[in-house]
Amino acid sequence: MIVNEKHYRTIWMEGTIVKTIDQPKIPHKFSICSLNNYLETAKAISTMILRGAGTIGAAGAFGLAQAINEIDNEDKFLDELNKAKKILENTRPTAQDLFTAINEVYNSVKDKTLIDAKKISIEVSQKYADRNAQAGEIIGKYGAELIKDGFRILTHCNAGWLAFVDWGSALAPVYAAKRQGKKLFIYTDETRPRCQGSRLTAWELVNEKIEHAIIADNAAGFYMRKKMVDMVITGTDRIAANGDIANKIGTYEKALCAKANNIPFYIAAPTSTIDPSCKNGDLIPIEERNENEVLFMTGRNKNGELEKVRISPIKSRAKNPAFDVTPAELITAIITEKGIFKPKDILNAI
Amino acid sequence: MIVNEKHYRTIWMEGTIVKTIDQPKIPHKFSICSLNNYLETAKAISTMILRGAGTIGAAGAFGLAQAINEIDNEDKFLDELNKAKKILENTRPTAQDLFTAINEVYNSVKDKTLIDAKKISIEVSQKYADRNAQAGEIIGKYGAELIKDGFRILTHCNAGWLAFVDWGSALAPVYAAKRQGKKLFIYTDETRPRCQGSRLTAWELVNEKIEHAIIADNAAGFYMRKKMVDMVITGTDRIAANGDIANKIGTYEKALCAKANNIPFYIAAPTSTIDPSCKNGDLIPIEERNENEVLFMTGRNKNGELEKVRISPIKSRAKNPAFDVTPAELITAIITEKGIFKPKDILNAI
Repeated sequence: MIVNEKHYRTIWMEGTIVKTIDQPKIPHKFSICSLNNYLETAKAISTMILRGAGTIGAAGAFGLAQAINEIDNEDKFLDELNKAKKILENTRPTAQDLFTAINEVYNSVKDKTLIDAKKISIEVSQKYADRNAQAGEIIGKYGAELIKDGFRILTHCNAGWLAFVDWGSALAPVYAAKRQGKKLFIYTDETRPRCQGSRLTAWELVNEKIEHAIIADNAAGFYMRKKMVDMVITGTDRIAANGDIANKIGTYEKALCAKANNIPFYIAAPTSTIDPSCKNGDLIPIEERNENEVLFMTGRNKNGELEKVRISPIKSRAKNPAFDVTPAELITAIITEKGIFKPKDILNAI
Repeated sequence: MIVNEKHYRTIWMEGTIVKTIDQPKIPHKFSICSLNNYLETAKAISTMILRGAGTIGAAGAFGLAQAINEIDNEDKFLDELNKAKKILENTRPTAQDLFTAINEVYNSVKDKTLIDAKKISIEVSQKYADRNAQAGEIIGKYGAELIKDGFRILTHCNAGWLAFVDWGSALAPVYAAKRQGKKLFIYTDETRPRCQGSRLTAWELVNEKIEHAIIADNAAGFYMRKKMVDMVITGTDRIAANGDIANKIGTYEKALCAKANNIPFYIAAPTSTIDPSCKNGDLIPIEERNENEVLFMTGRNKNGELEKVRISPIKSRAKNPAFDVTPAELITAIITEKGIFKPKDILNAI
């Protein structure tokens, strides 16, 4: 990720300290958090200090490596390992990458001695993170072939650098096309309630010097009906075996708008996001988050401080599903690091 | 409108002073504004101190009556009348009620002497406002017949009391059904960028003691796909001759979601909203509002004060179309004070 002309990854591990960009402070402040033990890493996932399928996956892998390195007694190894696995898996329910990543580390150490497991878990989690960054770069190359010079692209939520170790999924093709010299215009849905579009995607696009406009989520259909959008690309948190996907709440509405207006609707994701054991989208667990994300909004006040303001009546309640399911028939194709697949053929990618 | 158990209209005129509820302060503070002359009334329309098709219409009528009563010289009557008409018409471009109401007052006085025009304009504008309130009540009766006990109804923006002189359009059937003893649950889209759903509709529902939940605009499709919504009702700012309608940005997306999930999608509006001279929805002028409505958000801070916070990068721009067009084929029926019409038959209502 380019921030003030310097390259950063979104998440990395130094020794057994996990470092990550503090995402709730973006775009107002750029700062790096240190997560000193696996419980801090678990909390950073559940409170969304870090978020995005790829970043969550890497955090899960690093977190399990931290947990293993915190165990001081061989006799307790398997008990503590299983306990940490469960705690890390319970942080967020929807993103498949979390489970893929944790299982990869878990399976690499479960038959080892504690001393070997400590070393192996760090190596395996580092490799997992590297692979996530590489997958983003390759997704970018495949996806950029679909982008013509002058394209106006709509995206929802943030599936850019901040959602991955590097590059991103939905935005990787945009960044690759930009590097190929193509002129682009990005509509970024603000993506209520947490505004990952107006806060995170817009901030990435500013740093990448790509022309863009933030729009209310409600306005995506308006621009699609006016044929002012050439393609839609979003990320995904889980791909079911039949090609249905779960992604940030609102993705389904954008897919319906694209279908109604004959605009291609692409999903971009690494193959670590595929859940072959999940037959269809309706079986993907959907996280319901705290209603305060809807009832309040946080931003920078006139003194430059982050302030939370209430935007609703005190006696009103809210409902806050964090993801929705987009059925395969609304998806033009899925862009992965193994190539571009029709949704129904997605299992061929793994 | 019931506020703290007391009845209010949204807008009324005492002598030549227009009084209206200060809507940007809702739900945080309930206060009444006095608009002392027609230019203050025009400014209150354009700055959205008052908003909603019916309320805008009544404000246009009252504003023209104010303007006529401000003219001190018979010789200047027609010039000043035409100038005021133009200023009031230029406040907001989309809502047909504004033009209907202004024309009704204008036509009633343009051939009269100034002294007669002063009296007539007040009478005609008062009657226009009364008729708007009555239309809401009748729309409520017709619409309530479509609502079954236990219905879960989704609405977008605010087409309730605050959008009309009284009762509302989309919410009038809800209020009538409630008075018939039907149990209801309302999903209110927050309706970014100005949050008329989470601020105004939710506040009305609190005052009316109707069970409801605010949802992010993105979540409407989620609940429709889960078959947790029995019907959708919204208002409209203009109905074209072919039954296409313009309404708050995002209405089109909700209509697509309803269609995809076989959920009835109703529009409620008085016949003053019909524009027979407009052949189809694509000819309705769509207002583009200031980008700051998207880049910032206003709410109540921890000290109880209204505070505006920035929710986007300083270098990002936004686009902010205020309305979109929903084509007739997505609309189940239009509920008016003259009965319920198929969109293609809407001209039969006038």
